[in-house]
Amino acid sequence: MQTVAANSTTASDASAPYDLGAAVALSCRECGTRTPLGPSFVCLECFGPLEVAYELPTGDPEGLRRRIESGPASMWRYAPLLPVPSDVAAKPNLNPGFTQLVQADRLAAELGVTGGLYVKDDSGNPTHSFKDRPVAIALEAARAFGFTTLSCSSTGNLAGAVGAAASRAGLRSCVFIPDGLEQSKVVMAAVYGGDLVAIDGTYDDVNRFCSELIGDPLGEGWGFTNVNLRPFYAEGSKSLAYEICEQLGWRLPDQIVIPVASGCQLVKIDKGLRELISLGLVEDKPFRIFAAQAEGCSPVSRAYKDGTDAVRPVKQPDTVAKSLAIGDPADGPYVIDICKRTGGAVDDVDDEQIVDAMKLLARTEGVFAETAGGVTLGVTRKLIESGAIDPTLTTVVLNTGDGLKTLDAVAPSSRPTAVIRPNLDAFRAAGLA
Amino acid sequence: MQTVAANSTTASDASAPYDLGAAVALSCRECGTRTPLGPSFVCLECFGPLEVAYELPTGDPEGLRRRIESGPASMWRYAPLLPVPSDVAAKPNLNPGFTQLVQADRLAAELGVTGGLYVKDDSGNPTHSFKDRPVAIALEAARAFGFTTLSCSSTGNLAGAVGAAASRAGLRSCVFIPDGLEQSKVVMAAVYGGDLVAIDGTYDDVNRFCSELIGDPLGEGWGFTNVNLRPFYAEGSKSLAYEICEQLGWRLPDQIVIPVASGCQLVKIDKGLRELISLGLVEDKPFRIFAAQAEGCSPVSRAYKDGTDAVRPVKQPDTVAKSLAIGDPADGPYVIDICKRTGGAVDDVDDEQIVDAMKLLARTEGVFAETAGGVTLGVTRKLIESGAIDPTLTTVVLNTGDGLKTLDAVAPSSRPTAVIRPNLDAFRAAGLA
Repeated sequence: MQTVAANSTTASDASAPYDLGAAVALSCRECGTRTPLGPSFVCLECFGPLEVAYELPTGDPEGLRRRIESGPASMWRYAPLLPVPSDVAAKPNLNPGFTQLVQADRLAAELGVTGGLYVKDDSGNPTHSFKDRPVAIALEAARAFGFTTLSCSSTGNLAGAVGAAASRAGLRSCVFIPDGLEQSKVVMAAVYGGDLVAIDGTYDDVNRFCSELIGDPLGEGWGFTNVNLRPFYAEGSKSLAYEICEQLGWRLPDQIVIPVASGCQLVKIDKGLRELISLGLVEDKPFRIFAAQAEGCSPVSRAYKDGTDAVRPVKQPDTVAKSLAIGDPADGPYVIDICKRTGGAVDDVDDEQIVDAMKLLARTEGVFAETAGGVTLGVTRKLIESGAIDPTLTTVVLNTGDGLKTLDAVAPSSRPTAVIRPNLDAFRAAGLA
Repeated sequence: MQTVAANSTTASDASAPYDLGAAVALSCRECGTRTPLGPSFVCLECFGPLEVAYELPTGDPEGLRRRIESGPASMWRYAPLLPVPSDVAAKPNLNPGFTQLVQADRLAAELGVTGGLYVKDDSGNPTHSFKDRPVAIALEAARAFGFTTLSCSSTGNLAGAVGAAASRAGLRSCVFIPDGLEQSKVVMAAVYGGDLVAIDGTYDDVNRFCSELIGDPLGEGWGFTNVNLRPFYAEGSKSLAYEICEQLGWRLPDQIVIPVASGCQLVKIDKGLRELISLGLVEDKPFRIFAAQAEGCSPVSRAYKDGTDAVRPVKQPDTVAKSLAIGDPADGPYVIDICKRTGGAVDDVDDEQIVDAMKLLARTEGVFAETAGGVTLGVTRKLIESGAIDPTLTTVVLNTGDGLKTLDAVAPSSRPTAVIRPNLDAFRAAGLA
């Protein structure tokens, strides 16, 4: 048993220093105080959130670029920039990432974007959401710290990602979700054979319960991807930034639109973009980050519009975009800071606009996005119309999940055009030829 | 308007010869008679099925291997071996393929396989089934021949793949499915905004109707991926063979287990493996091909067991594996030939064995397969137990689709372990710690 710092959670006797690649310590995002690598997540000095600090491979950007380009077609091509051992690709894990950056010319034409429009389509990940990325990093941390159970609080996508990753790795899993999620997400959280616990409450209730469990002997040996492994877990989203730039030919996008649940993904994409600049892998030029929320759970958007960074929690989220229904987003203030600093904005759309955007994306590009993808594209459309997004610049829109997981949103309007008997007369009568 | 041969279907005035890469003609699988490239599918001499004939890039296997390895992370890395223009990757299409070959060590341990067990997981394709591969090839043929509507008869997966590919490419789509498919497949067939026609009948009724439609003026300008574009479409499955070998380090697997609906996929994987041998990209050594069917629609398995290659159609398929429910499989006799020639076998499993295998794969490897994947793994398990599959040899099992599309099969047994109030006492009472 090892306690790295007083706020650490317990794990079995893995011996530090851990082999987590270029990661050298944890550091407080608020006061900068450093803590040794371990399952810690809160700064002992100021209670700020901890994040991973690196010694990144500087000095030879061309060599690093070649090393990345000759790596595997997964996020592990960026292993030198992530908190993972160098042999990570050889270990049993889901190998997520390197998903398609879709050049969305037909969508661009409909939206009047002339500077290039791209959809980063993370539905191509193994469990069909971006969550496979952070979970793959959290799994390495869990292995390093000797945890035997992988756990999480989840709005659904994370539960499936944790269940699948734990099965592949041979760990036990026990995941927690709010009761009443979409059927496909419940099935996907359960099908991998781990324990699935539904909590009678909201996501925020689930999250609070998990924090309680970590402090209790009941939770001993448990790695919660988004609680005590959060500093590692969170870094997974940096890979989205790396991939987008590499897939643009080692160029920064001018504008990028990102959905906000906890806000963690947006914060880490910003971090990833800045790392690429500091490593000399992309040209140092401005980029703008835009944040998208669903109106029915838009605490960050509301604070942004009110001109404050004091994000007031939403008690009862009510939106078709359940994967974004985090009423008390941990990284809300950071999201507002980043959008302001980069010249971006935060906005939200309602359920009807979400479904419209899902169908627009499917119809123009053949990408069937989750409701969260509808939020992001819906906000993109809104911000193009308002002029906040410049249609003459290169714009990347994130699709973080899969339409198959939020079927109910489009099912009523996605029915057969006609039901006919199998003959030409019946087809002729249907008027579709 | 151009008629390539009397059995061709019509298309608008694209000028031959078409740029379809290494494809030089169509040739009859039965009598070898050649026909110029075009939307033809039946031999005029003997009514046998046509397939694509190539002039493949022989003579420099090392150069070809390097060219492939430096290609895109999609099936287009094998463009030199497919009937597509050399700039195919730059055109708007779904860029499917190069899906993961999962080294399934935990599954191997449960099944007693010691020679290496791999799952080729095609749920990672853009619309989450292998169908994106043949459709991507058919799309190129449709473009070449000037078709304006992309169509198909489908048990569901193909419908979604055609809808998505047509949307990306800016073609109209109109797809035909039997009424009563899984909801997720219906939604996915409709969501891309093309026309979706449900036919009151079985898949075979749908298929016959499409053949009728092609011969009618109503179908003018229509490219049916699996009818008049079938020779091209079918070649898409060769890419599975190429990828498996490349991902094994340019080695042939010893044994490969493939699900059989029409049988087309199995036939083309065999063709692809033999091409790699003749091109010198892999060592020339024996490989065994095994075919898997669902008991409720097992015409090929039944014929194989009866020692005949006369495949008697199944009139009313009844299986949870609806994507394999083709009662009258066009390539059935070829499947039997190939399995016999290579020393493989054909077998089938019932619904319970299918669901068991789906859950086994999810629990051991974190891969949530469609029912068809359960068929393939279920038959693999059965053939290992019977001794037909040698557990000391390298074995590859195909998962051709995604569990999210056949949710009903596992939903009843994939529920939360417990539903609790958000407190430690409630969790303790659930007995899961």
